[in-house]
Amino acid sequence: MDLSRVAQVAEKENVINLGIGQPEMAILPNEQIQAAMLEYWADPHPHYLAYGHEPGPDNLRHALATFLTAEADDPTAYDDLFISGGASQALDLICTLYTKPGDTIFIEEPTYFLALRIFEDHHLNMVAIPMDDQGLITEALENELKSHRPKFIYTIPTFHNPSGVTQSAERREKLVELSIEHNFLIVADEVYHLLHHFPDEKPPQPLASYVAHETVISVNSFSKILAPGLRLGWIKTAGIHLETLWRSALLDSGGGVNPFAAQPVRIMIESGRLKQYLIELKNLYRRRINALDEALQSASLAKIVTYHKPLGGYFFWLKFPDDFDTEQLWSIAQTHGVGFQRGPSFSHHKGLKNYARLSFAYYSIPQLQEAISRLDTAVKAYLSTT
Amino acid sequence: MDLSRVAQVAEKENVINLGIGQPEMAILPNEQIQAAMLEYWADPHPHYLAYGHEPGPDNLRHALATFLTAEADDPTAYDDLFISGGASQALDLICTLYTKPGDTIFIEEPTYFLALRIFEDHHLNMVAIPMDDQGLITEALENELKSHRPKFIYTIPTFHNPSGVTQSAERREKLVELSIEHNFLIVADEVYHLLHHFPDEKPPQPLASYVAHETVISVNSFSKILAPGLRLGWIKTAGIHLETLWRSALLDSGGGVNPFAAQPVRIMIESGRLKQYLIELKNLYRRRINALDEALQSASLAKIVTYHKPLGGYFFWLKFPDDFDTEQLWSIAQTHGVGFQRGPSFSHHKGLKNYARLSFAYYSIPQLQEAISRLDTAVKAYLSTT
Repeated sequence: MDLSRVAQVAEKENVINLGIGQPEMAILPNEQIQAAMLEYWADPHPHYLAYGHEPGPDNLRHALATFLTAEADDPTAYDDLFISGGASQALDLICTLYTKPGDTIFIEEPTYFLALRIFEDHHLNMVAIPMDDQGLITEALENELKSHRPKFIYTIPTFHNPSGVTQSAERREKLVELSIEHNFLIVADEVYHLLHHFPDEKPPQPLASYVAHETVISVNSFSKILAPGLRLGWIKTAGIHLETLWRSALLDSGGGVNPFAAQPVRIMIESGRLKQYLIELKNLYRRRINALDEALQSASLAKIVTYHKPLGGYFFWLKFPDDFDTEQLWSIAQTHGVGFQRGPSFSHHKGLKNYARLSFAYYSIPQLQEAISRLDTAVKAYLSTT
Repeated sequence: MDLSRVAQVAEKENVINLGIGQPEMAILPNEQIQAAMLEYWADPHPHYLAYGHEPGPDNLRHALATFLTAEADDPTAYDDLFISGGASQALDLICTLYTKPGDTIFIEEPTYFLALRIFEDHHLNMVAIPMDDQGLITEALENELKSHRPKFIYTIPTFHNPSGVTQSAERREKLVELSIEHNFLIVADEVYHLLHHFPDEKPPQPLASYVAHETVISVNSFSKILAPGLRLGWIKTAGIHLETLWRSALLDSGGGVNPFAAQPVRIMIESGRLKQYLIELKNLYRRRINALDEALQSASLAKIVTYHKPLGGYFFWLKFPDDFDTEQLWSIAQTHGVGFQRGPSFSHHKGLKNYARLSFAYYSIPQLQEAISRLDTAVKAYLSTT
């Protein structure tokens, strides 16, 4: 069987593609989920094969609320949680229920390129708000609010994709204030929040902790902290928005999004396996960050590239000189067996030509080191042709 | 634990609600799926916890194609299949990708009330086409095509929900001809096609068998033939539409819809368990149809009610006299401990006040008999008050 037709990623032989923003298959918690499955299915509850309760099974919501209260620095009530089919499904549902084509939304520049595609599929008018090393620039947002009334702003406050930046607590508070004052929703993509890889460098409280104001919908996922193939995530939001989501036609007709995967995940949480796995994952990613940082610093490209060493998440965001073109570099890099994501993918107006995103989630340290060596060669080749 | 918060249906004590259009929990194939799960998870493939291939895992698509070719009277190529999260998710995705708010679609009158809600969530303009005992009246459709250009027509060709009617082969061909001539899509909800409960009364070939013309998207589900909690279904359509679906942002970002549930279902198919379960299910539903038919015929209400005894699917569609109001009957029936779906739910313009839908899927024969006895009492009470 051709495995590339089972998994989404089709790996090319001899290419190390740091463009892949997914967990490495070898580090997925196969044995733990297998154990949870076998434990559950040794004595399953028959009702779990019926249409599921629309906001997700109560037992998972309770377990998750306890987990988030302890691990995410975010006191959470179970009935503020809606079990989704992952962040993508959540964003799609939010677009269906809260927007119409032609509506304006605010996004960050840069932002997650596949979220951009979801918004394009919903024909939304996007206005990009710039970021700096404190995250979304709230003054710039305030300025755009003078001429636009967005339905929502899509923001990735913590360990941003692609920039790795974490928004400061002050900016978070300002953002929430503005949402109340100007009556727009904050759709916060917080899928990296739990992935703070340096124990002493915890991010500020998530935007999920501001839901009581009824302007925040926090989107989260088990894809990054457990396994993408589960297609399970959650939304935390206040009562009125939770009702909007689960009383939607899609949920009314289909029942809960993914009751089948919900039970092994509940067992993963209740048994402490998720907490343990998350510790292992953060240790692993921290070592990779350090190794990738060292490899970049030791390479010739360090002379022309700047970046903030990330403290969490999945990504390094490299800035090349202003006149550098990472589209062109990408073509050269392909011939040297290395890949990355090009800056313009993350830009609504296809700017950011001198940026590149590298992910450390999919490859081992030796592969990351080899990739940087190849990238360095590619950069040299690029510089010699321009 | 309050089970009503795990399953979608909250059963009220002492009420037999024939409005529930779901399989009875006791007849769900718990043991078979449990066996398939244990078989799979004894030696799982690690890639199944990664993001899944967007149109669904190849091995499930191959198994399903073989199954449909044999069981659905529909020669099917695996690459005409897209694995969905059930019919509701499929309809939602089709609306996102093929329509914008204000677009016109055609629906049947009557039609599935939760599909109506999905179309409302997408702000579509609906034009209702009448049906008779041969299904959708294609002459009426042709007439509406003079003044409308629909994006698609949503039709339930076989064992219609709620009417139980099956569209004739001639009408199917005419419908496909019209779709080619007038350039609209046919979104065929064929979730009951495999549920022909009388062996000698097979329906005509499904609209899925007309996909080569590239005007048909056939939506199907494992909810009715296996278990709703799996949240798994499929779409059969031609190459171009298949590409539109799986190259959508939602699939690009999230990978395949539900790779986790896909593998036990594949094993259910490959092992022959699905085929066997389907035989048992049809035998069971046939006995229920006969029992419900007998109970209705023996009741006093038989004097004022007409219906076609269904040959498949889930539903009896009762027609009361023209001036009868099933909304009012419903209120009375509640006090007698019996429920049903009221006609206006299935009508875009809230007509059909003298119709009621009864489902035989959720209750055993003694419960169905008791329900008809209670309904008969309720009808008498209704008649004595009007």
